[in-house]
Amino acid sequence: MDKIQTLKGFRDFLPQEARKRQFVINMLKSVFESYGFEPLETPALEYDEILQGKYGEEGDKLMYRFKDNGGRKVALRYDQTVPLARVIAQYGQKLPMPFKRYQIQSVWRAENTQKGRYREFLQCDIDTVGTTSPLSDAEVIACTLEAAKKLGFKNAVMKINDRKIFEGVQGKYLVTLDKLSKIGKEETARELVSRGLSVKQAEDLIAQSQNKKPTKTLEEIFFYLGGMGYKKDKDFVFDPVIVRGLDYYTGAIFELVDTNPEAVGPSLSLAGGGRFDNLIGIFTGKNIPAVGIAFGFDRVIEAMEAQNLFPPTLLKTETKVLVCPLGQVSVEYSMSVTDSLRKEGVATEIYLEPENSLEKQLKYADKKRVSYSVIIGENEMKEKSATVKNMITGDQKRVGLEKIGEEVI
Amino acid sequence: MDKIQTLKGFRDFLPQEARKRQFVINMLKSVFESYGFEPLETPALEYDEILQGKYGEEGDKLMYRFKDNGGRKVALRYDQTVPLARVIAQYGQKLPMPFKRYQIQSVWRAENTQKGRYREFLQCDIDTVGTTSPLSDAEVIACTLEAAKKLGFKNAVMKINDRKIFEGVQGKYLVTLDKLSKIGKEETARELVSRGLSVKQAEDLIAQSQNKKPTKTLEEIFFYLGGMGYKKDKDFVFDPVIVRGLDYYTGAIFELVDTNPEAVGPSLSLAGGGRFDNLIGIFTGKNIPAVGIAFGFDRVIEAMEAQNLFPPTLLKTETKVLVCPLGQVSVEYSMSVTDSLRKEGVATEIYLEPENSLEKQLKYADKKRVSYSVIIGENEMKEKSATVKNMITGDQKRVGLEKIGEEVI
Repeated sequence: MDKIQTLKGFRDFLPQEARKRQFVINMLKSVFESYGFEPLETPALEYDEILQGKYGEEGDKLMYRFKDNGGRKVALRYDQTVPLARVIAQYGQKLPMPFKRYQIQSVWRAENTQKGRYREFLQCDIDTVGTTSPLSDAEVIACTLEAAKKLGFKNAVMKINDRKIFEGVQGKYLVTLDKLSKIGKEETARELVSRGLSVKQAEDLIAQSQNKKPTKTLEEIFFYLGGMGYKKDKDFVFDPVIVRGLDYYTGAIFELVDTNPEAVGPSLSLAGGGRFDNLIGIFTGKNIPAVGIAFGFDRVIEAMEAQNLFPPTLLKTETKVLVCPLGQVSVEYSMSVTDSLRKEGVATEIYLEPENSLEKQLKYADKKRVSYSVIIGENEMKEKSATVKNMITGDQKRVGLEKIGEEVI
Repeated sequence: MDKIQTLKGFRDFLPQEARKRQFVINMLKSVFESYGFEPLETPALEYDEILQGKYGEEGDKLMYRFKDNGGRKVALRYDQTVPLARVIAQYGQKLPMPFKRYQIQSVWRAENTQKGRYREFLQCDIDTVGTTSPLSDAEVIACTLEAAKKLGFKNAVMKINDRKIFEGVQGKYLVTLDKLSKIGKEETARELVSRGLSVKQAEDLIAQSQNKKPTKTLEEIFFYLGGMGYKKDKDFVFDPVIVRGLDYYTGAIFELVDTNPEAVGPSLSLAGGGRFDNLIGIFTGKNIPAVGIAFGFDRVIEAMEAQNLFPPTLLKTETKVLVCPLGQVSVEYSMSVTDSLRKEGVATEIYLEPENSLEKQLKYADKKRVSYSVIIGENEMKEKSATVKNMITGDQKRVGLEKIGEEVI
């Protein structure tokens, strides 16, 4: 073939990137679980019928749909909410209610890659299904704030609003109103007019959205958040202007924003969600209330990179020590050194081609970013010792066999 | 639609199953990393050209291939070795050599589900690319034995052979010979004859395969394994009869077998691999040596279930305590209890519908398998206390606010 490459919008993650992703995933999981959310996995492929029509016309277009070898119409996972609705319908009584689950899997969308979008990306969702209690909204928000804090975001703020504030306003105007903080009053008004409002109506709608007061439900959520130790106007704010694009929300809506000035963009959205009481029941014929949030995984990674939030150790391999045998004759001794370092709990690798020069072996140590090389030649063997080289400072010294462990800790 | 269901051969993993999978994945990762293997992720979809023809006729048939919305021919990941070969070709110099990576991702194969096979399953591979050193074979074997031990398998033995032993024997006969330990001498001979050998030739080939001695390379691998503390005929054995189905192996081949009598089947294969020096270079035009092994993830899970190797705590949720507020009036106090338990490091959940009866709340606690319920009604509030109920024994007692933490540890 002409060129060895990945498909547009699809990515390889080489070790250093893969380690960052795992770090974020593990952190999210541990916070989610500490709040009682449990893991769920669903298949990559579903019957097309299950997904089709659930994401609007746009979704049907962007979905990867095809016929499998048996002629069945199938589609790749497009989000994790419709599969959750299927799971609720399929297992019903088997699940504890409220059902609190988290799900961290890839989804596929044939997006326009010119907009910097990916066609395969990870979604990280938590959802509580089966209760209308505002306590569950508050819990989802608290869990998200906790996760952001654990990831190192010091200026993450949850903007909260209620869809009910806009009752009677058409969806197409809400989508525009949602952009207010990004594109400003003037531009928003222009767009509202282009969508059919008069200038006066557009200005009124904007003014109205800015003068709103929290609904009773929001007051209750705020009260609970206070009870969990979160402070209004610091950890969370009432923001009558956010709408959130998705029109399936029915109550509280929220968006986690990184207000750190070093964040990418003026205020970067790290997660978004809300209450959606009419969606989860689609396969059951009855309304099943739900509230949840999704992290923008790629944005979280980008923001953490921009603000140096990854621990420096993550840029190294897990391997701390490379044992370098100089020639075949040193291999056996080197292996016993490797073995005893591992037994002391030090992640240790042995260089696999003992005939290679020390220079080549140290170059490999550099590329793998290990902290120490333990060099073993004939002299070292004779003296039951090893030369320990600090790969950052370049210092090296000969130490006795029993001292190697101490030297590399 | 008629029935809400998953596609044949595809599975949901509800929380309890998902937790088992995560347990195994985390254990494998930590062992792989301690041996210097690094994580790699590749896309679910590749250009069809990349995968096509790499797995024989059978593979082309079982692969999920289709045209995407842009008319490109694409295919779902069928294994992790061909994508690894692409990565090696694409990033070349950027990677440390030898390149040691692990990869744990789903693959898709339209297998016959009547044989109990899945169409979506997880592969767990480690591979070392870029060296012919038998030390790297020994390292892959040692890492696999270590992983099996950490998972709790006490009778896992690595069977080792060398493809070179059969040099000159046609692939189709080797595939049959591979079944010797499963189907016995007689059946194997019959199959060899049906494939074109005379009865004498078949019997000779079987006898010959049983009287072989380890090659020089195997002796070297065994020596290294000894150096790493593994014992011949206990941790690993020379088995001149194993062939391994895949005909891309070129040297040492190995298979990890669970010899525990409680294991599923007479001897259950948990992992298999070997040296393949002609495959990774396919996209580069030169030979690039490699050695690796793949865990049979589903089999590992089944074997662990059959032998009760999962820690009992895994059958519970991560959540240890459910706080049960009896009525709206108890919510604020209950939240502060929840908050302080979390701060003490106890994974704690608050019941989200305080108007529900205690009975209903405790039923939920049972279904979520928490260890303790902390019940808070008006009396408890007045006395700054809580009723702590042990969900296993059913015992309960009233304790002061500051004692709750101790009580549930």
